[in-house]
Amino acid sequence: MADDHRVQGVPVTDVLERHGSPAYIYDAERLRSQYRGLRAALHERVEVHYSLKANPNLAVTAVLGAEGAGAEVSSLLELETALRAGIGPERIIFLGPGKSRAELEACVKERIALVVVESVGECAMLSDIAAAQGVRPRVLLRVNPGFESKKSGLAMGGKPRQFGMDEEVVRELWRDGSALHGVEVEGLHVYMGTRILSAASIGEHTARILALAASLADETGMPVRTVDFGGGFGVPYFANEGELDAAEACRLVNEAVAAFLADRPETRFILESGRYLTAEAGIYAATVRYTKESHGERFAVLDGGSNHHMAAAGIGSFVRRNFPVKLLNRSGSATAAWNLTGPLCTPNDSIGNGVDLPDDLGPGDVVGILSAGAYGPTASIGRFLGHGFPAEILVDGGRDHLVRARDTVADMLGPQSLPPSLKEGA
Amino acid sequence: MADDHRVQGVPVTDVLERHGSPAYIYDAERLRSQYRGLRAALHERVEVHYSLKANPNLAVTAVLGAEGAGAEVSSLLELETALRAGIGPERIIFLGPGKSRAELEACVKERIALVVVESVGECAMLSDIAAAQGVRPRVLLRVNPGFESKKSGLAMGGKPRQFGMDEEVVRELWRDGSALHGVEVEGLHVYMGTRILSAASIGEHTARILALAASLADETGMPVRTVDFGGGFGVPYFANEGELDAAEACRLVNEAVAAFLADRPETRFILESGRYLTAEAGIYAATVRYTKESHGERFAVLDGGSNHHMAAAGIGSFVRRNFPVKLLNRSGSATAAWNLTGPLCTPNDSIGNGVDLPDDLGPGDVVGILSAGAYGPTASIGRFLGHGFPAEILVDGGRDHLVRARDTVADMLGPQSLPPSLKEGA
Repeated sequence: MADDHRVQGVPVTDVLERHGSPAYIYDAERLRSQYRGLRAALHERVEVHYSLKANPNLAVTAVLGAEGAGAEVSSLLELETALRAGIGPERIIFLGPGKSRAELEACVKERIALVVVESVGECAMLSDIAAAQGVRPRVLLRVNPGFESKKSGLAMGGKPRQFGMDEEVVRELWRDGSALHGVEVEGLHVYMGTRILSAASIGEHTARILALAASLADETGMPVRTVDFGGGFGVPYFANEGELDAAEACRLVNEAVAAFLADRPETRFILESGRYLTAEAGIYAATVRYTKESHGERFAVLDGGSNHHMAAAGIGSFVRRNFPVKLLNRSGSATAAWNLTGPLCTPNDSIGNGVDLPDDLGPGDVVGILSAGAYGPTASIGRFLGHGFPAEILVDGGRDHLVRARDTVADMLGPQSLPPSLKEGA
Repeated sequence: MADDHRVQGVPVTDVLERHGSPAYIYDAERLRSQYRGLRAALHERVEVHYSLKANPNLAVTAVLGAEGAGAEVSSLLELETALRAGIGPERIIFLGPGKSRAELEACVKERIALVVVESVGECAMLSDIAAAQGVRPRVLLRVNPGFESKKSGLAMGGKPRQFGMDEEVVRELWRDGSALHGVEVEGLHVYMGTRILSAASIGEHTARILALAASLADETGMPVRTVDFGGGFGVPYFANEGELDAAEACRLVNEAVAAFLADRPETRFILESGRYLTAEAGIYAATVRYTKESHGERFAVLDGGSNHHMAAAGIGSFVRRNFPVKLLNRSGSATAAWNLTGPLCTPNDSIGNGVDLPDDLGPGDVVGILSAGAYGPTASIGRFLGHGFPAEILVDGGRDHLVRARDTVADMLGPQSLPPSLKEGA
């Protein structure tokens, strides 16, 4: 058992024995050290807001909140999660291209720090809601800039997008002013892209965003007391990817920030981070149920797969590549190429192709997808074929805590019912 | 209001007013007529089993069950759903490459019709479980054949796959016999592929599968009292696709069946169908929240998108193509090209690109994805960004019934908890 994989000294096999398999296991200390490293490397005027979309688990959010992270949320659930996790409304910002009236009402009612408005229509609706309540929420105007990111995994701006407003729309919104009657413009928000592994790209984005903010402010006279320049700090998943030089990325961000402060010394900045803070603190652990050979290839059928970690199955990517995989319950000597599949009745349910694992891999062995702390269960098709979402465990202080119970059959049938016409037949 | 879209005479706008937006709306009459058409066209020896994976909604399953459909299930939830929907165990078969011990125990306990075993290890485990309970479940052996489908959307066999057993493995399983000690081999199961729109392909698959069954039986002496030859009956989604000629497909299936019966007159057959029975009976209806122009393109931001209908967003496909889209609350004259996006903070959240919709599309308009009755909510990332799974409505007897309640914040926070160490900080 010396070769079993441990999280804060706790063997993963013990965690699964107590809480069942498959499960996501998060390391609270790893979350803390990742946040602290980023916090320490950034200019003091840059606030770090945790993007809950990466991992909205309540306990994960609470760990980061206790460290001082703010929250970037985009639904009522994420807002409520941040509040319950102990992140005060003064540290919460709300984004999203399609906010409902109920979401905007909650932003006003909870007096959150900033609402990032993404269209003229939304701005007008928020003004009306706020005026009716007699308060004046602070907003950032989200700009879809005229320039584009070249190095991000997914471009959020610089193209036709549902996010934010084109520069000329923002100018006109400010000039016209009518949609702003109930809100206080605090500054701008620009997000270029996600999962960036080049420090130079992050530095360049930040500099260009701040230059855009300065020119819009100079030109229109609108305030830029706060600039949210997004984030996009990535983590490597695949064999051909190198780690982001985060220290260098922060140095370049700080440089751009310092230059901006020379002219506007009171400005505050927001950096959003989700994947970078959580990905490497998580493991998805699944157990081999059956092994077989088919048409000359080896298959290990696990108790979970793409239904719990869709990204590892490559669904949503042009090319499927293997996430880092590790045998977690023992070491092995001679290796063979294994296909790792899940319990679903679809050939897409494969989270490893030709992965090197022991020759004698068999039922009961535990396999882990590493760097699984971001965009895991909530970004997956957990209800597909009815297996449900897995357990989530937080290891903290050397102890494992169940922080999200696995779905049961009763949970999944709970919201369903039969109309009277069908009940009689049953 | 004459131009609004109605389901059994009920305006979709009324349905959304009563149950909220967005929602899936299923037409019970359409489900019935689709089942009846298929049933009537097939040889009486072919049983139709509804594949719950396509749409495991309890009410949808009950509608089909009341018509006489059997059920093809692959998890405890699907098994429980079929039973509650009034489908007796004698009409239920259980498939899946990674069945858990608990699932196999449930199969034995409920005395379901057939367990489709997919590996030697599973067969041995089922034998042990059954022997301990003193019963002898009937099984089909799933074969991954040596030949391949050319016309299916997704090949399930004829390649290295996690499903079933290669032909030589099945021969050896039968010859050796030890894994079969507690079960009764009833026949074979072969599934070639899914979403097939060519009647000739379906006919060819059926003929080849039955030829394989006959030759395996002749060669080994194993019984083939039942052959499950899968299904794969598709529906068209995209502009370049034509409808499957289901009558012709059934004629070819019946021809192959009749030929098989000439030599083995007692054989029974199973055809599995999910998508074909349900897809065209469903609509995903969403409401426009905001419209905007960005870099020269028009965007309508809806209250739901890829989080509820991931296939319409093209996630999981190599090329994103538009599903059929319709304005549901009114007609429009002059049209424009609209991008339809959802509330998520990702550019992938787009369920229509350049779709023709009225020039004056605006907040409050209701847009529908048609042919949305299969692989909808449960095949989507409903928890992503915390918006939750949508409501599902069954229209039956000219009335709309809520058959799956929309997720609430409380529902989604329910299974979560904070460890004691974090509670103090909150």
